[in-house]
Amino acid sequence: MPTNTILYYEEQQCSMQWKYFLRAFSAEFASKGDVKDLRAFMYQLGRTMAAGFDVSDGSSLQALEACMNQVWASMNWGWVELVEEADALVVAHHAAPLKVAFGADAMDWTPALLEGIYAQWFEALGMDKSLRLMQRDGAYEEGQLFVFDLKKQSEEPSYFTRR
Amino acid sequence: MPTNTILYYEEQQCSMQWKYFLRAFSAEFASKGDVKDLRAFMYQLGRTMAAGFDVSDGSSLQALEACMNQVWASMNWGWVELVEEADALVVAHHAAPLKVAFGADAMDWTPALLEGIYAQWFEALGMDKSLRLMQRDGAYEEGQLFVFDLKKQSEEPSYFTRR
Amino acid sequence: MPTNTILYYEEQQCSMQWKYFLRAFSAEFASKGDVKDLRAFMYQLGRTMAAGFDVSDGSSLQALEACMNQVWASMNWGWVELVEEADALVVAHHAAPLKVAFGADAMDWTPALLEGIYAQWFEALGMDKSLRLMQRDGAYEEGQLFVFDLKKQSEEPSYFTRR
Amino acid sequence: MPTNTILYYEEQQCSMQWKYFLRAFSAEFASKGDVKDLRAFMYQLGRTMAAGFDVSDGSSLQALEACMNQVWASMNWGWVELVEEADALVVAHHAAPLKVAFGADAMDWTPALLEGIYAQWFEALGMDKSLRLMQRDGAYEEGQLFVFDLKKQSEEPSYFTRR
Repeated sequence: MPTNTILYYEEQQCSMQWKYFLRAFSAEFASKGDVKDLRAFMYQLGRTMAAGFDVSDGSSLQALEACMNQVWASMNWGWVELVEEADALVVAHHAAPLKVAFGADAMDWTPALLEGIYAQWFEALGMDKSLRLMQRDGAYEEGQLFVFDLKKQSEEPSYFTRR
Repeated sequence: MPTNTILYYEEQQCSMQWKYFLRAFSAEFASKGDVKDLRAFMYQLGRTMAAGFDVSDGSSLQALEACMNQVWASMNWGWVELVEEADALVVAHHAAPLKVAFGADAMDWTPALLEGIYAQWFEALGMDKSLRLMQRDGAYEEGQLFVFDLKKQSEEPSYFTRR
Repeated sequence: MPTNTILYYEEQQCSMQWKYFLRAFSAEFASKGDVKDLRAFMYQLGRTMAAGFDVSDGSSLQALEACMNQVWASMNWGWVELVEEADALVVAHHAAPLKVAFGADAMDWTPALLEGIYAQWFEALGMDKSLRLMQRDGAYEEGQLFVFDLKKQSEEPSYFTRR
Repeated sequence: MPTNTILYYEEQQCSMQWKYFLRAFSAEFASKGDVKDLRAFMYQLGRTMAAGFDVSDGSSLQALEACMNQVWASMNWGWVELVEEADALVVAHHAAPLKVAFGADAMDWTPALLEGIYAQWFEALGMDKSLRLMQRDGAYEEGQLFVFDLKKQSEEPSYFTRR
């Protein structure tokens, strides 16, 4: 039952106004490139989108999380948790409307949009240049959770070479 | 985490356009009557609302449920399950926006709106006059589920005398 | 053609989620009182609603107008112009969703909601106690514009005695 | 004043959920191709979108217009008028959310989305193969009206060669 409630809300979350356009975009676009290209385009879109928002309060992790969640709530794009771990800052994004908007088939590449947005925000806040934000493989909680790690990069240069 | 997701979606579900009006309505209204009067008014509102929708396919329980869910989905008012039990038809309504719209304090009386709507729909479908629809005490799943029984009434005439 | 565009937008403006509830509320409510009582209730609802918003920048007329419009835009309730005239401050509210929400028949009393909201805001800003906010008779631009005057009251105590 | 009302509604029409994404898409995309390529991609998106809707009642012009307007209203994409002229069927689409979604700079190419949708619908209805749907140069009513002609093509093969 609670599972059905999640499915109901998930379906309703995506604005009817753009759902058909976004599905068509996703279908057309996916037919034109491989996952790596698709991710690169979404990542760039994310960077461009990010610049339109004011996420500049890096005084504390709580302040930054609150700042980001104000943006996400205003767009109904879910919410984020920032969690410090030993070797990484973990960015856990819940309830993004990506699956319903772009389709379950596109879950390999659409989260790169969030990757680009967070990367842009952290850079604008002046993060250490040796750090890099990367999505963990896969979607969690049936597409309701995406996880990104911000950490020092060594031998693992990208989402794709890890595979 | 899934709990937070439910809370997030629940909060976002209610249209910002009317949330403040409905909260004010709820506060003003609650100050003017006891729960019985409040329920009676909401029940009557429900009957009036119901008449504006076409819920007329009683050819099967599945058809009726689908018909009702078309209405609910178009308004983003959650969804209903109709379940036949030995002595009652159970109407389980999930994910109605009542709690966020009218406030958690008003959960005693706002579901009478749904009671009125379902009562009107079942009557219009020509249900046996000896049957009566009544809400089971309380809200389930933290206000995400309301349960109504459609059954022969004997000694228990209302939600209130049961208490 | 532009007229049709206005009608289209007007119809679409009101959230589907609450349109049927608000219409039922309006019908039920109108059957229970005269226009004076209905206005008094809506006025009180407006005062209660107003308290939930932060409209506190009275440093200039422009600042105040901007402050109010931030509230109105966040709810998609249209926008306001504040205009100083010789003997009054004119409050012109455009594109409120009242007509579609409550019905064209209710236009005599539903704008008292706005009257209550503005009255509360001006009082909280510390306006001169001898001033009073009152709606001008009638709706303008086919219900797309309501006008209120904030001015010294003499012989005309209310919307109703003026009639 | 009525002009401001149009501007207000126009701005509010586009879902906040996707406005930033669509703007970023428009900016990125425009930087990658000329108007002809952009139109071709939007046209193809339109064809793909169109296939997701049921617009099949061609029993009369009125029926077809009503059928199309049901789709447009469900998405809040404005409305269409179909007008028979001597040598063409004129398709006048009002109040599409293209300008606010994709930006005023993109008005040269974004309406090709509508061109693709209408072309697909007319083809699926079995229109004469010698007919072709083409957008008239420019946007009318400050981007609130786009006009398409469905007619026999002779020497004018496209929007672009006409220039």
